[in-house]
Amino acid sequence: MQLEKVAVLGAGSWGTALGRLLAQQGKQVFLWARRVDLAKDINSYRENRRYLPGVLLPARLRAYSKLDEVIEGAKVVVLTVPSSALRETVASIQEKLSDDVLIVSTAKGIDPETGKRPSQILQEVLPKHLAERVVILSGPSHAEEVARDIPTTVVVSSVSRAMAEQAQDLFMNSYFRVYTNPDLLGVELGGALKNIIALACGVAEGLGFGDNTKAALVTRGLAEIIRLGGAMGANVATFSGLAGLGDLVVTCTSKHSRNMRFGAFLGKGKSVEESLNLVGQTVEGVRTTQAAFKLAKEMSVEMPITAECYKVLFENHPPDEAVGDLMSRIKTHEVEEGVDDWK
Amino acid sequence: MQLEKVAVLGAGSWGTALGRLLAQQGKQVFLWARRVDLAKDINSYRENRRYLPGVLLPARLRAYSKLDEVIEGAKVVVLTVPSSALRETVASIQEKLSDDVLIVSTAKGIDPETGKRPSQILQEVLPKHLAERVVILSGPSHAEEVARDIPTTVVVSSVSRAMAEQAQDLFMNSYFRVYTNPDLLGVELGGALKNIIALACGVAEGLGFGDNTKAALVTRGLAEIIRLGGAMGANVATFSGLAGLGDLVVTCTSKHSRNMRFGAFLGKGKSVEESLNLVGQTVEGVRTTQAAFKLAKEMSVEMPITAECYKVLFENHPPDEAVGDLMSRIKTHEVEEGVDDWK
Repeated sequence: MQLEKVAVLGAGSWGTALGRLLAQQGKQVFLWARRVDLAKDINSYRENRRYLPGVLLPARLRAYSKLDEVIEGAKVVVLTVPSSALRETVASIQEKLSDDVLIVSTAKGIDPETGKRPSQILQEVLPKHLAERVVILSGPSHAEEVARDIPTTVVVSSVSRAMAEQAQDLFMNSYFRVYTNPDLLGVELGGALKNIIALACGVAEGLGFGDNTKAALVTRGLAEIIRLGGAMGANVATFSGLAGLGDLVVTCTSKHSRNMRFGAFLGKGKSVEESLNLVGQTVEGVRTTQAAFKLAKEMSVEMPITAECYKVLFENHPPDEAVGDLMSRIKTHEVEEGVDDWK
Repeated sequence: MQLEKVAVLGAGSWGTALGRLLAQQGKQVFLWARRVDLAKDINSYRENRRYLPGVLLPARLRAYSKLDEVIEGAKVVVLTVPSSALRETVASIQEKLSDDVLIVSTAKGIDPETGKRPSQILQEVLPKHLAERVVILSGPSHAEEVARDIPTTVVVSSVSRAMAEQAQDLFMNSYFRVYTNPDLLGVELGGALKNIIALACGVAEGLGFGDNTKAALVTRGLAEIIRLGGAMGANVATFSGLAGLGDLVVTCTSKHSRNMRFGAFLGKGKSVEESLNLVGQTVEGVRTTQAAFKLAKEMSVEMPITAECYKVLFENHPPDEAVGDLMSRIKTHEVEEGVDDWK
């Protein structure tokens, strides 16, 4: 019997971890790496030494650098490319996709030019009959841990319930639990906006602040995510779930987060360019800060943490002053948000 | 001019850090230590070498082991004793309190016998005219960081708005920001119940799990805190604020948390007794698990994480099976909580 073919596009840590998981599930996994040498290296060592070192990859997973070879006859296409590369990547494959393909995207971000979310970009680029076959996968899931079978919970969302459930069945196993959530807007906003708060937490860390400061940023960060998401029409319950709070917590407290590492360099006095170079991988939070700052303005929503990040990233505002600004925002006798006053 | 006298009861890390802060605010701080040698040591070294090592204490702070000396003429009494010692401590001082005293308690916990919160215990023990003068201080605030002037945000709550605002004015400075919240029930439940989830996160860590697992526990933990708190009549917005989510995040992700450390020993296979001895300080989560388990039953509220912690602590349930039980609770095609289904 021939195994079902699954294409995973993007051989970063997340693509490799999800490819490994799907191979464990009995699929034949074709992992696409843009660079020929990376594909070769993965196949020679059965390890992605560059992006997921120390993890043995199953024999059912092979890396390729030719996109056609990977897409041809695939029943499932998993897109793990960064949100900035999503449009171009899908445009180049859309003609070769079969009619019954399931398309899963893990991109987290908002396009700063158009304000579009990954699912909206996919809907624009894909032929009409495939647009409904898109599923977004999000939630608190560091690749490094999924690749070590560590218990993880995620969310899948789609305009189509059938497609979301198909994705749920595809990925679900004993250590990787998949919930469905029909609120596509909320799931994508949660996944994107948390990177701004992670960036702010990184700045706080770089300035020498601690867990108390981060907890304040996470709490007030979630409040501003909920304000924007609510104004845009998302279900606010989504933000208290795995794709909101869950992803926010994991990103703001984990050593694996790139957005935090980037922010920490800023907090230590490096420039934006230096910090980007030091991280050496995509930092979604930069684009997303720009996008969210614009959206907040358009919708007249107050997002103080996002505004301070924007000033640090794009207006040369010193990071220590940004944190000072945030702390001094609280006036004397201010009551916590959302609670009633004394009767 | 004589400085205003403030009594701080309890020379643990939190009492010492708050005493230091109040001395910085220009108060004359009398810190009570139960043990004579600890009081002497603090005064000789101007450092609490046992519970807050490395922090120089201001000259305006002195430690005493005689309770009367500390209480006499104090305008403010800050209680930092554990919730289990609260009743006894306050009973022994209540006759000596002046009529215009401000009483601030930082105890976090629920009494497993009576289901009472710290403010309720205080109201029972204090004379009627003082019962309204009680303020609860809570929020994400590790003593070790407050003692190093690291930006921190907390919440004060009271039945009396005037008392809450008096406490706010007393503590507020450039690095320690104080919000008020009239929802005393929510603030106290948030501070108590988070210790159960921290304990569960510790168990997960001890079992070798990672940040993904912890993020899932925090997300689903907050959901069950909200369920119980809502059923009991708290304002659910409080749980998304500093005393709920904020404190939960800091406790579940920080190296300073005793409840986590205790849970981690359990996860590594130590018994409850061994783990308590290894931590060597009060672990509020144990009592609170017992109390919350009882409350959840009485109110018919589902609290799966609390129930698993209870089984591990009081019914010899193996920790690895508890995590397995939690993961397998999610059925196929389960939709995330609180969100609508597909239309």
